[in-house]
Amino acid sequence: MPIMNPEEFALASRRAHQADSVVDVYGVTVGGLRPVVCAGPCSVETPEQILACAEAVRKSGAHLLRAGAYKPRTSPYSFQGLGERGLKLLAEVREETGLGIVTEAVDTDTFDLVEEYADCVQIGARNMQNFSLLRRAGRSVRPILLKRGLCATLQEFLLAAEYVLAGGNPRVILCERGVRTFADHSRTTLDLSIVPAVKRLSHLPIIVDPSHATGVRDAVPSMSLAAIAAGAHGLLIEMHVQPNQALTDGPQAIYPSQLERIVSDTASIAAILAQSKVPQPLI
Amino acid sequence: MPIMNPEEFALASRRAHQADSVVDVYGVTVGGLRPVVCAGPCSVETPEQILACAEAVRKSGAHLLRAGAYKPRTSPYSFQGLGERGLKLLAEVREETGLGIVTEAVDTDTFDLVEEYADCVQIGARNMQNFSLLRRAGRSVRPILLKRGLCATLQEFLLAAEYVLAGGNPRVILCERGVRTFADHSRTTLDLSIVPAVKRLSHLPIIVDPSHATGVRDAVPSMSLAAIAAGAHGLLIEMHVQPNQALTDGPQAIYPSQLERIVSDTASIAAILAQSKVPQPLI
Amino acid sequence: MPIMNPEEFALASRRAHQADSVVDVYGVTVGGLRPVVCAGPCSVETPEQILACAEAVRKSGAHLLRAGAYKPRTSPYSFQGLGERGLKLLAEVREETGLGIVTEAVDTDTFDLVEEYADCVQIGARNMQNFSLLRRAGRSVRPILLKRGLCATLQEFLLAAEYVLAGGNPRVILCERGVRTFADHSRTTLDLSIVPAVKRLSHLPIIVDPSHATGVRDAVPSMSLAAIAAGAHGLLIEMHVQPNQALTDGPQAIYPSQLERIVSDTASIAAILAQSKVPQPLI
Amino acid sequence: MPIMNPEEFALASRRAHQADSVVDVYGVTVGGLRPVVCAGPCSVETPEQILACAEAVRKSGAHLLRAGAYKPRTSPYSFQGLGERGLKLLAEVREETGLGIVTEAVDTDTFDLVEEYADCVQIGARNMQNFSLLRRAGRSVRPILLKRGLCATLQEFLLAAEYVLAGGNPRVILCERGVRTFADHSRTTLDLSIVPAVKRLSHLPIIVDPSHATGVRDAVPSMSLAAIAAGAHGLLIEMHVQPNQALTDGPQAIYPSQLERIVSDTASIAAILAQSKVPQPLI
Repeated sequence: MPIMNPEEFALASRRAHQADSVVDVYGVTVGGLRPVVCAGPCSVETPEQILACAEAVRKSGAHLLRAGAYKPRTSPYSFQGLGERGLKLLAEVREETGLGIVTEAVDTDTFDLVEEYADCVQIGARNMQNFSLLRRAGRSVRPILLKRGLCATLQEFLLAAEYVLAGGNPRVILCERGVRTFADHSRTTLDLSIVPAVKRLSHLPIIVDPSHATGVRDAVPSMSLAAIAAGAHGLLIEMHVQPNQALTDGPQAIYPSQLERIVSDTASIAAILAQSKVPQPLI
Repeated sequence: MPIMNPEEFALASRRAHQADSVVDVYGVTVGGLRPVVCAGPCSVETPEQILACAEAVRKSGAHLLRAGAYKPRTSPYSFQGLGERGLKLLAEVREETGLGIVTEAVDTDTFDLVEEYADCVQIGARNMQNFSLLRRAGRSVRPILLKRGLCATLQEFLLAAEYVLAGGNPRVILCERGVRTFADHSRTTLDLSIVPAVKRLSHLPIIVDPSHATGVRDAVPSMSLAAIAAGAHGLLIEMHVQPNQALTDGPQAIYPSQLERIVSDTASIAAILAQSKVPQPLI
Repeated sequence: MPIMNPEEFALASRRAHQADSVVDVYGVTVGGLRPVVCAGPCSVETPEQILACAEAVRKSGAHLLRAGAYKPRTSPYSFQGLGERGLKLLAEVREETGLGIVTEAVDTDTFDLVEEYADCVQIGARNMQNFSLLRRAGRSVRPILLKRGLCATLQEFLLAAEYVLAGGNPRVILCERGVRTFADHSRTTLDLSIVPAVKRLSHLPIIVDPSHATGVRDAVPSMSLAAIAAGAHGLLIEMHVQPNQALTDGPQAIYPSQLERIVSDTASIAAILAQSKVPQPLI
Repeated sequence: MPIMNPEEFALASRRAHQADSVVDVYGVTVGGLRPVVCAGPCSVETPEQILACAEAVRKSGAHLLRAGAYKPRTSPYSFQGLGERGLKLLAEVREETGLGIVTEAVDTDTFDLVEEYADCVQIGARNMQNFSLLRRAGRSVRPILLKRGLCATLQEFLLAAEYVLAGGNPRVILCERGVRTFADHSRTTLDLSIVPAVKRLSHLPIIVDPSHATGVRDAVPSMSLAAIAAGAHGLLIEMHVQPNQALTDGPQAIYPSQLERIVSDTASIAAILAQSKVPQPLI
């Protein structure tokens, strides 16, 4: 490896790659003008639940299915996910619905298994600086969805992506999911200003997760539209067919009807942006 | 005054007033479906500068003119504004352009003078809990634009508005302008999640200031569109005909051409929201 | 006034005044090796209450009495203080106990009155950037106790002091009282690292208020000792003879017995610091 | 495992274990009245460097040696530590100096090796919610030093410890090392108020790392004394015999002479606390 300046995200930088990168996830293009909506329940719970959710996602017009089989949980006593059984259920609903699967790998031990089943491997906010996991992701054959840590600076975020890129995997999608602040009306504070900042400094696509950011179902539609208007390339949204019965994160899961409107409205907003002559951020 | 629960923003609450309040500023309605754009330079500098800026604002299709005659400055050695002479220049450009004036009152001593010239009196972020100033605003004949403090909670923000309402002035417009966080890619972190939260709890209109929030010109268009998509009733934007020569805040002032696109694009986004059936936040 | 660099706190700087400044408050020296303890109730409530509190302060060995006659309150419906009657009661207990009085001025309108009765005029955290109030303090004949704003940077804090110094009043005591963060085990996060930072950059004395910072009675003794060990010149502590009956801030008011131990233990810690050869921060 | 409330840190709680836990690290007791000082360079660099540093630590009167062989680095292009060779050098200086070794394990892959050489295995701030690593630590035969994440709440911190305890390892030492805030005079904001809060809720010992918290050498002595005065059971300090030549973190490494004074002064402060009758936090 050539000697690099440790403070620089060389491969993630616009200087390394002037045009926007686009990342293909099971035939869906992330990083272009069309916003990509990836939706689904927090966790895979049962065969019936994940199939019903996936069908609602497909029916809404969203493009990818998200759901967790391995869950990083604050407490050792919380439900930790179905593990491999969850991954197999996800593969089955992919067959049924044609939707590509985004699911999380929480450690290097289970990365191989997740990689085998997933179309895009998510690295969660708490693992943004799990450097061993980032190095493993750098050797992956799958695209990586990398979430911003809860108090990560822009430089730290791009340097985390750099670990993956430097490992040989160029397919990284960034994801803003809210940062910790004093504000108490929202679980975290969604920092949409990082979207134009990332687009100025980096060629990597960036999407937004309004569900974990706000923690409140009724804030998700507004923040979804705001994210696309801010220039994000897509959304990662928690949706459940029966939010009140969800094993995890029910209060922030939206209803299928809300998802339909989000897909439709964000497409309309993206069309406005595509036609707009608002001077773009300088590179 | 009846005995009130000190933790409640009784008059600012949806419980007190179920319908959205609309506030008239010199014939412009703030709080309805059409987003209101209030733009102009940070400070009134010279007769020529303020007139040129005001004409650019009018030409862009924006609705109100903002500019400071009294400036709250971090340092005692910074330019503190033209004072009454600035107010008189603002009144003159109102005559010339027909644009209503939004300008800041920084203390109770000069409030009378500001009130005499302004169509809407701004109370800045650093004064959000200047309770004497809030009480004076409560006795004002003008609508009040109240900016959120740099680390104010939602409850503190609404209780600050409550001071104005309880003083007898029902015409309050709230304004989000970014909060202090660890993030360093933006001067402050624009907290758009407060928009749906305010709309859930309060009937007062809320607008957004992307200029002070980001401190970076090229982030202003994105954040303006995002604010309207999040449901904000309008924008407060710094624009200058010659940003590089501005006495204050030049790096965050946008160009007139950027303002034109923002006015146009936000109107298009608002039209999408008006037609959308996204389930609204429950009251 | 000569042309100054607006980013510099010229008069507050060590460059302007190499030696530590000491400020005399009613015969008590703030800024020397002996830590000064200023204690008392949040508010003046009744003649009996303030006298009992003042006597407990004197008996504890603390050096100054603090209590508010004008209270800046988040809600317009909260108890706002006794006003001038409170100031007169404070003057009476000064006669009785010999303790100098530190009390807050919340606006320019009442500053004259507060100045007449107080031995040291406090400017609260929410008013740290109330520049009109700072200018009035700059013309005061009294020393000023200036609290750090809830999200003020070190530079903003010193520039706020600079307003007072530039106005002609060299007697400023700084006070750290906690900053807003995500942490929820304490009302705010007491930032003791600002103590050595202030001492490096400025000659002004700095004290610490552990009561408002933590909001929890039982954290006050630990944080008091920590503040003095960090090099603070004194403490501002809420103490009440009957905390459970306090009109304001009862849960954070300590008992007189706790105050006695704090006075004694901080004196012991200061004696260790005075003898220590720990290399001091470089100027 | 019995069904536990996921929000409770059952085993870490005072309710589970009323008395303070003490943890033995190579014959040194952490958690008692005597503050334990663990000091050393950020990284093991060369045989000469680590031996010289260890001898300076021993000579200062400090009790344990810290140094990293595996380094979690923000950038993939930064020095990543000497790995196993570093561990062997640490084992050699333990033989020479008699000092027990605290060193970090950054992932599950290298945990076995670290465990083999270390007397206490550190889990760093960025790994506080690396749950796989916490589970491995729960099966370790070594005591675990668990650092608080940069934006971890108290509950999250104690639940991270709970993972280790629930895994069967009762020997956990907590470590506060600063949190991310807006403040820019210090690399992070050292949150000493968590010390009494931890002692109220948990029986686990808690120490403080002023070096990473402040990032500034000359703030380390003040914050060290403050930490002990706040009730911390010990300190984790970066010291280097030639800070200006350190490969990592030189600007925050103190000189041996500073360490000597810290050891001496903290012992004096602890003696004051031991004699004090300040009412302790209620459990």
